[in-house]
Amino acid sequence: MTHAAEVAARYIAVWNERDPSRRKALLAESWTEDAEYVDPMMGGKGAGEIGALIGAVHERFPGFRFALSGGADGYGDRVRFSWSLGPESDPDMIIGTDFVLLEGQRIKAVVGFLDKVPV
Amino acid sequence: MTHAAEVAARYIAVWNERDPSRRKALLAESWTEDAEYVDPMMGGKGAGEIGALIGAVHERFPGFRFALSGGADGYGDRVRFSWSLGPESDPDMIIGTDFVLLEGQRIKAVVGFLDKVPV
Repeated sequence: MTHAAEVAARYIAVWNERDPSRRKALLAESWTEDAEYVDPMMGGKGAGEIGALIGAVHERFPGFRFALSGGADGYGDRVRFSWSLGPESDPDMIIGTDFVLLEGQRIKAVVGFLDKVPV
Repeated sequence: MTHAAEVAARYIAVWNERDPSRRKALLAESWTEDAEYVDPMMGGKGAGEIGALIGAVHERFPGFRFALSGGADGYGDRVRFSWSLGPESDPDMIIGTDFVLLEGQRIKAVVGFLDKVPV
């Protein structure tokens, strides 16, 4: 895996983790303590807030899974990739693109955009 | 025009300006003094460096034009859009996507990615 692909895979894994304590462990591993996340719907700072945001998405969309959509690419401390979110019957219901700033090997900031949302 | 579309239009105009002094004026208008630009090929900080980067692209690709590709979207202080660059005969020769951080109405930082480059 390239570095960008690895960052994206770890990112998707955090978003798919429904267990709060396992999610906390994954966030501690791959995100900085003061990481910031923002997208058009929500935002948070720090592993606690970001873990809670992800938990809220699982509560709102039970059974939905995130998947990497296409490849990830990056250079320097920047990575971008697109993802899909949906239930098994419609895995591309929602599509988005995320832009990541790294600090060392860990995610320091994410800015998300939505490419496709259900009408 | 939405705010994001306006930011994108002003951005494309700066990239298409071949005259250094007009480019400098456009940069002063729509970018902060300490703005940062980075893409996979190059990077710079401040209107002087960024103006010079743009000039270098015009020298390398004489006659090429930038155009907005699709719409621009944004929220809060974030905007993203895709662009194409090419000669009249092949206007989509190069395609990229840029992510912009605003400070007030002006561009404070741009992170660019390349979506399509000639083989």
